[in-house]
Amino acid sequence: MAASEKALNQADANLDGALERLFELIRIPSISADSNYAGDCRKAAEWIAADLAGLGFEAGTRETDGQPMVVAHWRGKTTAPGPHVLFYGHYDVQPADPANLWKRDAFDPALIEGKTGKIIHGRGSSDDKGQLMTFVEACRALIQTTGELPVPVSILIEGEEESGSVNLGPFLDRNTDELKADLALVCDTAMWDRKTPAITTMLRGLVFEEVIVTAANRDLHSGLYGGAAQNPIRVLTHILAALHDDHGKVTLPGFYDGVPDLPNSVRKQWAALDFPEEQFLADVGLSVPAGEDNHSALEQLWSRPTCDVNGIVGGYIGEGSKTVIPSQASAKISFRLVGDQDPAAIRQAFRDFVRERLPADCSAEFLSHAASPAIMLDMSGPAVSAASGALADEWGKEAALIGMGGSIPIVGDFKRRLGLDALMIGFALEDDAIHSPNEKYELSSFRGGIRSWVRILDALKDSAA
Amino acid sequence: MAASEKALNQADANLDGALERLFELIRIPSISADSNYAGDCRKAAEWIAADLAGLGFEAGTRETDGQPMVVAHWRGKTTAPGPHVLFYGHYDVQPADPANLWKRDAFDPALIEGKTGKIIHGRGSSDDKGQLMTFVEACRALIQTTGELPVPVSILIEGEEESGSVNLGPFLDRNTDELKADLALVCDTAMWDRKTPAITTMLRGLVFEEVIVTAANRDLHSGLYGGAAQNPIRVLTHILAALHDDHGKVTLPGFYDGVPDLPNSVRKQWAALDFPEEQFLADVGLSVPAGEDNHSALEQLWSRPTCDVNGIVGGYIGEGSKTVIPSQASAKISFRLVGDQDPAAIRQAFRDFVRERLPADCSAEFLSHAASPAIMLDMSGPAVSAASGALADEWGKEAALIGMGGSIPIVGDFKRRLGLDALMIGFALEDDAIHSPNEKYELSSFRGGIRSWVRILDALKDSAA
Repeated sequence: MAASEKALNQADANLDGALERLFELIRIPSISADSNYAGDCRKAAEWIAADLAGLGFEAGTRETDGQPMVVAHWRGKTTAPGPHVLFYGHYDVQPADPANLWKRDAFDPALIEGKTGKIIHGRGSSDDKGQLMTFVEACRALIQTTGELPVPVSILIEGEEESGSVNLGPFLDRNTDELKADLALVCDTAMWDRKTPAITTMLRGLVFEEVIVTAANRDLHSGLYGGAAQNPIRVLTHILAALHDDHGKVTLPGFYDGVPDLPNSVRKQWAALDFPEEQFLADVGLSVPAGEDNHSALEQLWSRPTCDVNGIVGGYIGEGSKTVIPSQASAKISFRLVGDQDPAAIRQAFRDFVRERLPADCSAEFLSHAASPAIMLDMSGPAVSAASGALADEWGKEAALIGMGGSIPIVGDFKRRLGLDALMIGFALEDDAIHSPNEKYELSSFRGGIRSWVRILDALKDSAA
Repeated sequence: MAASEKALNQADANLDGALERLFELIRIPSISADSNYAGDCRKAAEWIAADLAGLGFEAGTRETDGQPMVVAHWRGKTTAPGPHVLFYGHYDVQPADPANLWKRDAFDPALIEGKTGKIIHGRGSSDDKGQLMTFVEACRALIQTTGELPVPVSILIEGEEESGSVNLGPFLDRNTDELKADLALVCDTAMWDRKTPAITTMLRGLVFEEVIVTAANRDLHSGLYGGAAQNPIRVLTHILAALHDDHGKVTLPGFYDGVPDLPNSVRKQWAALDFPEEQFLADVGLSVPAGEDNHSALEQLWSRPTCDVNGIVGGYIGEGSKTVIPSQASAKISFRLVGDQDPAAIRQAFRDFVRERLPADCSAEFLSHAASPAIMLDMSGPAVSAASGALADEWGKEAALIGMGGSIPIVGDFKRRLGLDALMIGFALEDDAIHSPNEKYELSSFRGGIRSWVRILDALKDSAA
């Protein structure tokens, strides 16, 4: 029996133990966006470091100005001297509100019956605790059965992916020598569908801005002041409404600079994917693509830039009525970027756009939560072929080479700061509800993910030749 | 010495006692909006009923589905047989949060040195405990010196004015015979300024709507769905932004139906008031009237209808960022009405306006929180002349006949349910901070208010002729 064959059997035999470990990790509410959970973030980091140390990794947590990092290096035997891979995942999770929409507590994981088989319930079960543990469990199975790993492995698990990864870039810069590798493996993406694995080759960038508009120096009674006093909610809605024209295009000057036309080859490949546009929308209760006219839903999602208001608040939001004209109103706005769109230029264009539209007596403050460019990976190297072949062996279907609407800033950071290309391979499904109530990870994703990494690591040892 | 002269002297001589009584009432935290204070509301009602009974009124509390009412009738001697007046005030107060912004506990009243003389500190000192006690103390001074009241007096003090007066209308309907009178006196308004008394003759009406826009059937990740999925915040901001044109006019079809041109006589009188527009706005950090072009701030406040968004919420509103496209976004919108604007028609026009602008895949729900028409009092009757003359005698200045931007639903209820006109005379000042921390009532308001009611009651006895 080949080494990888033994490891695959071992992974299956130990699946219950792997689930128990994942549940332990999910039970730690490591919400990085809320400072009340800083202690839990640290706990999650320490849990992972301890698990990796138990496998024989040189592993520990590292301080940053925010949540700690987990860094681990396999110092044991390897079958081949290279390529040296650096695996990336994140232990932090999205907030779980609104709590009342969860059928079961967000941090009380369980294996339950889903629509298409068994699913793992819980915040982070998919994004990204379940995903990162597929790699850890693959290493475990290989180490337990062969005492070695096929290639040198380092692991970097961050704790601020859901809150802008603000400390990741500086950390990479401070540790370039230690984190040097030949290839990054990033497990934070989805499969094409339940049965088709995928390697993500295009990622949109992200600019995330918060704007706070202030008018009067205190909240006012709308009866006493209404009509004469400026209302910051009205100001904000006017500005936000002006961000899109009637054709769904974003109106910021220069916004489309650097947005490439989709190459015909890619357009063809995407057409061949036969994306079920109607079903994709119907699954969430929608029917009409809401983006730019003259672009398919897939183009709107993968290759066109967007602007979305992700949050807005102002005035009285409790039950019933209160006739207040608030002093402030605020909104959180994100722009998804493609091609060569410049995050800094777009952030500036947005701030100028707001300031130009402020009426008398109003001021605006801005907070920047993210600014990362889009990524397009070179798919011609031997590592991609090796991974692609390994995925096909496991799932019995060729891996789809796909784009992705979301942003994974780490991929740009790896390229820019460490000179590393990244293979984005994940086993999530579109309906995992990763930022919503009732997040889940399919048992088939978890098991197939573990087995896939066993095969990929094994295949990589031959790709260096 | 005339009877009223004796009563005025008595009121001044007993001012310390009057203050002590007001302090006792302020010490009862009768916050109607918070059910934890229901016992205190009852205590305040019983305190007032006992005080009035002590003066010789037939007085008691009456149950409703909410906080109790106080009802009192003077069954003693009166100088003239009419007009029979029904005095209205409210014993409930606004919540006192945030507690840390109060320089002294909200429910620990004291006479302290203010910017322009002595002030009475405490929640309710102005709104409306201080105001309602001016009338009670006037009755006390008259009864103590003459053994009678100039005209028949009934008193109605409610306990839910700050929480929507939901039980007031039904109570009036159940007790129309008992509450029958010739004229209502409402003491819940302000003076024109520190030295100029005022009778409020115009009140704006109010339509208050809440709209909830729903798009997808769950919250979505803006990376995975952004561009193709409809965003209800975007939809809502587009709709709300369309409610005003570039000249500050409200765009609802038919909105201005029934809005009267301001009569030249009123315009002249208002111009003569020399409203300190700049100071009014500067006090709250503003400088430019934000309402309709070509209308002064005073017109915008008193005689023009408005539309304000009083609250908006959607998506992620916590700290930091979350790339969510929410399923829902909602807003609370109020319309201030004037003249003959029809609340029902405006509510319908608003709902139609929203529905017409909903894109595919979006739905809207509506909640109605208020719908009351504007009030314009007939100022030609003898009661107004009598009150006006009495106020001029006390303050040495003609009373201003003013409008008011807010709504006092009781005035509409008195008219509609009891057929009663109401004289709105109050002694609050704009800077009393009535819904804010550090509420105060000037000692000059309290003393002048008591003396004013002595004179008004006395003058009314001659107005019946």
